[in-house]
Amino acid sequence: MLDRTQQYALGVDIGGTNTKYGIVNHRGEISHKGDLPTNKYEKIEDYVIALHEALKPALDAVGIENIKGIGMGAPNGNIYTGTIEYAPNLHWRGIVPIAQMVTDKFGLSCKLTNDANAAAVGEMMYGAARGMRDFIMITLGTGVGSGIVANGQLIVGHDGFAGELGHTVIRPGGRPHWSTDIPGSLEAYASATGIAFTAKELLDGSQEPSTLRNYDPEKINSKVVFDCAKAGDKIAQEVYRFTGQILGEALANFVMFSSPQAIILFGGVIKAGDLIMKPTREHMEKNLLPIFQNKVQLIFSELPEADAAILGASALVWES
Amino acid sequence: MLDRTQQYALGVDIGGTNTKYGIVNHRGEISHKGDLPTNKYEKIEDYVIALHEALKPALDAVGIENIKGIGMGAPNGNIYTGTIEYAPNLHWRGIVPIAQMVTDKFGLSCKLTNDANAAAVGEMMYGAARGMRDFIMITLGTGVGSGIVANGQLIVGHDGFAGELGHTVIRPGGRPHWSTDIPGSLEAYASATGIAFTAKELLDGSQEPSTLRNYDPEKINSKVVFDCAKAGDKIAQEVYRFTGQILGEALANFVMFSSPQAIILFGGVIKAGDLIMKPTREHMEKNLLPIFQNKVQLIFSELPEADAAILGASALVWES
Repeated sequence: MLDRTQQYALGVDIGGTNTKYGIVNHRGEISHKGDLPTNKYEKIEDYVIALHEALKPALDAVGIENIKGIGMGAPNGNIYTGTIEYAPNLHWRGIVPIAQMVTDKFGLSCKLTNDANAAAVGEMMYGAARGMRDFIMITLGTGVGSGIVANGQLIVGHDGFAGELGHTVIRPGGRPHWSTDIPGSLEAYASATGIAFTAKELLDGSQEPSTLRNYDPEKINSKVVFDCAKAGDKIAQEVYRFTGQILGEALANFVMFSSPQAIILFGGVIKAGDLIMKPTREHMEKNLLPIFQNKVQLIFSELPEADAAILGASALVWES
Repeated sequence: MLDRTQQYALGVDIGGTNTKYGIVNHRGEISHKGDLPTNKYEKIEDYVIALHEALKPALDAVGIENIKGIGMGAPNGNIYTGTIEYAPNLHWRGIVPIAQMVTDKFGLSCKLTNDANAAAVGEMMYGAARGMRDFIMITLGTGVGSGIVANGQLIVGHDGFAGELGHTVIRPGGRPHWSTDIPGSLEAYASATGIAFTAKELLDGSQEPSTLRNYDPEKINSKVVFDCAKAGDKIAQEVYRFTGQILGEALANFVMFSSPQAIILFGGVIKAGDLIMKPTREHMEKNLLPIFQNKVQLIFSELPEADAAILGASALVWES
C-alpha cells in the first residue's frame, strides 16, 4: 500500500528527438516509464498537452497527491527561470516558459535544468556520488556536457548557465569547434565527434598502415576507432591515447578550480575503458599541483544508461 | 558607547614576512591596526604567544565580549581543519594546527583559510562584491591567487584547497613554472614574475629597438615594463597585450565553469589599467559561448590595498 507522504517524483527528459519520462521513488526505482516524440510538436502548447495526456494514466494510478513534483532536464534549461532558452535542437524558438506551463497543466511544481546538471543531481541522489558534497560529472557522448556540485549544491552561476566545461579551451589556437567556431575546446577533441576528427587527422598525417584505412573516411566514428584499437591497430590506439591526454589535462584544470572528491564520467566515449582512462589519469595527475595529486577519484556513472536521464530529472525534485 | 552585541571581528593576515592585524566592524572599519614579524618566530608556539601579547591592549580596549571571533588568512590555510599545511614560505613545517592554538590562547573561535579565499570573502562583505552570490576574485601580484564564490558560498572543495586558478594550464607545453615545473600555467604568464619573463623573451626574440634594452635584464620587472609601455615603448606594450590575451583566455574558461556575475581583480599587475584590461576583455569575450558574452563584469577590487588582507581575514568571522 502506498505511504500517504509525497514519496514520488516525476522525471521528464526532453531530448531533441524523444522525451522520456517515468515516476521515481527515493531509491531511484522507476515505474510507469514511457516516451513521446518531442519533434512532433511544433508548438510548445501542443507538446505540454500531449505530455499530460501520456502521463495521465500513470498519475491516476499513483495518485497525484503522492507526487512531490516534476523534474525536467532539457537542453539550455534554466534553473532560475524555468525556461528553455534558444535551444538549437528543439522546434520551440526563443525563450520557452515550459516549467510554468507544465505546472499550470499538471497542478504540480516543476523544476527545470539542463540535461548535464540533471545527470549530476541524479548521481548525487541515486548513483556514484551518493553522499558526496563536491564532485564533477562529465558526459562524453556526441558532445561533452558537465554538471558541477560544490558544497552539496549544483553550481548554476548567476544566470543559471554554469558548467559548460565542454566549451573551455584546452588547446588555444587548436581545432575549431564545428558549431561554436571557438578553437581548441575540450568538446572539439573529447567527444565522439572529436575522436572521429582526430582519427582522420592522424590518418592524413602519416603513411603508417592502419585498418582504419579500410573504411570510407566519412564512416569513421568513435565506435569504429574503438573496434580497431581493441584489435591492436596502432593509429586507432593513438587516437584514444591523445584523446585521453587532452581530457586529462582538462580535468586537471577543473580539479584546481573546485577540488572535487570525484569526477564521474558518463557516456559512449568511456566505453573504450583503459584505452582512454589510462592516459586520462596519467595526464590529469601530471598537471596537478602536488596538493591535489592522488586524491581525486575518476569513476564511472552507476546509473543504467537507458534510465539515467529520467533519474537525473526526477532527482531535481528532491534537491533543495 | 559600545553596543553590547558581538559587533567586532579580529582579522589576522599571516604573510611570510609580516603578520598584519586589526579589529574590524560590520562596515569594514578597522581600528587597533598593528603588525609583527612572522619570520622572527621559528616555533609556532612562540608566534601565538607574541600575537596574543601584541593584541592584548586592543582586546582590553574593545572588550573581548564584544568580539565575535578571529578570522585568519594564511598561505595554505585549510578552512576545514584550521591548519596551515606545508606552507613553503613559512618557518613552520608540516601541518600546523594554528586555529586551535589561537582559540586556546585567545578564548575566541578562529576561522582560517588561504589569503586569496579571505580576499574574496572580504570583497563580498565590504567591497566590490557586496550582494553578489556568484563571483571570482583573482589576485595578480608576484603570483596569481584566486577565491571563488558560488551560490553565496566560498568554494573550498572536498579538502579545503579549491581555487588554485593560477595553476591551471592555459598554454599546454608552454613556459614551465619556476616553482611547480608545470608548463603553461596562468601564473607563469599573468603574474608580475611572468610579465618580466615575457619581456625578456620578447627582447631576446627580436632586434627591435626598445627602451627596455637600456635596463640590465635582471632588473626588468613588471613596474619597469609598465613605465616603458606608458611612455610608448612598443615591446613593453606588447608584453601587456600578450599578458592580457593569456589572462582573458583563462577568464573565459573560468566563466564557463561557474558563470559568475563579476570577476574582481586585485593586485599590482592591474595597475597597468587599459594596457592589460583591454586585451583581457577582448580575449575573454572572444572565447566565450554567446550565452555568456557581454554579461560578466570585469571590475577592480574596492578594498584599500593596505587593508585588504586584514579585512578579508576578518570577514571570515561574519561568513556563515
